[in-house]
Amino acid sequence: MIILHHAWKSSASRRVRLCLEEKGIAYDGRVVDMGKLEHHSPEYLKINPDGVIPTLIHDGLPLHESGTICEYLDETWPDRPLRPGAPYQLALMRNWIRHIDGLIHNLIIFNWRHHLQKVASQWSDEELAEKLKNIPSKERQDSWLRVARKPYTDEERDSARAKLVALLDRMEDSLKPSGWLVGSAYSIADIAAVPFVKRIEEEIAPDEVTLQKHPRVAAWWQAIQARPAFARANIGPFLDA
Amino acid sequence: MIILHHAWKSSASRRVRLCLEEKGIAYDGRVVDMGKLEHHSPEYLKINPDGVIPTLIHDGLPLHESGTICEYLDETWPDRPLRPGAPYQLALMRNWIRHIDGLIHNLIIFNWRHHLQKVASQWSDEELAEKLKNIPSKERQDSWLRVARKPYTDEERDSARAKLVALLDRMEDSLKPSGWLVGSAYSIADIAAVPFVKRIEEEIAPDEVTLQKHPRVAAWWQAIQARPAFARANIGPFLDA
Repeated sequence: MIILHHAWKSSASRRVRLCLEEKGIAYDGRVVDMGKLEHHSPEYLKINPDGVIPTLIHDGLPLHESGTICEYLDETWPDRPLRPGAPYQLALMRNWIRHIDGLIHNLIIFNWRHHLQKVASQWSDEELAEKLKNIPSKERQDSWLRVARKPYTDEERDSARAKLVALLDRMEDSLKPSGWLVGSAYSIADIAAVPFVKRIEEEIAPDEVTLQKHPRVAAWWQAIQARPAFARANIGPFLDA
Repeated sequence: MIILHHAWKSSASRRVRLCLEEKGIAYDGRVVDMGKLEHHSPEYLKINPDGVIPTLIHDGLPLHESGTICEYLDETWPDRPLRPGAPYQLALMRNWIRHIDGLIHNLIIFNWRHHLQKVASQWSDEELAEKLKNIPSKERQDSWLRVARKPYTDEERDSARAKLVALLDRMEDSLKPSGWLVGSAYSIADIAAVPFVKRIEEEIAPDEVTLQKHPRVAAWWQAIQARPAFARANIGPFLDA
């Protein structure tokens, strides 16, 4: 019995949904409304004291961190493997996931602009203090303070965009031998990159995910979207229409 | 044939040396002098384009990231296993390593004070620009700029110290069932914590690694230091005598 507490637009949630769908594992999805700060609610903190999304619950045991969850799923359900067999390739896969994880702040800079900045900037000091109180980590308290009172500058957004384009450069290089990031098959490293490329292609730097600029990434992105699991994972537009 | 490019005082290098020694794997250690910025030299960047330490080279194949390297070693040499067998415990182990990795910046704040700040603050603007040019990542360029021109404040050090003490709190809780961080045996999660506890105990918050404050951590730390591999890994004082 698998429950996934997730949000449709959270990159980490998108990875785990895609992994579950690629492996054909049935699950009970429970949507957490991040706009309403449900992930900082007392109910959710009981499930996940760090207040992060997603949380997978398998036979009552909770697990967080999308990279860890995907490896756990592949370990527990070995059919349709999403990891290379050779230890060295497996290590390269893990380093790819780590590398992409390390770029998440650059996506978050864009999240605020589109979503929470407008709302948060209208909170009174009292409302803001009340919301901050429920956020478990100091880092994320700081992010919220930032978005409510000191929005990211154009320069910060440009720098974030440049780092995300550098991810495409690095992918382009790794995709050369086989068309996949690691070894000769689709793996959790590719899954880790999907929510990032989705956002880059949709809004952050659309002209970089093209045959002209990054031909292998563009072909990879077409191949990813053509997989039946991609549609089932519901990795839709980030921006409201 | 294993080569390890490492530095005696680098936390990530200490983890990998401890893992190699625990597993009884022979290796050829090559010391990289970080004080002389050898990790940003053209020679080292050929080995590791990211300019990070350590790099393991096994039969000619290079690998970085201490957590990834330790899992790779355990996967390739299954004797004296350092990972739990059950997938859920394995996932918890990986999340422990990730959690500790996420705290590295708090250690680095203390590194600067003791080592490079004095040197870096005396560089001329030209010398500084020359050194920054060779640093592959923008983040680490920023750190160097920071240490050379805007040293960390007392408030920043206090905040870093508090986060490292919170690590001890979290360890105390996890050590309760078995005396080890995950499951019932010593694992790579414990290895990941060792360089942090070493620094906390030596200089950052010595009175927290005590029977009074964190009794299970204190007992764990005694047990770790009593292991023969600990001495062989040469995890000595961070501060010069």
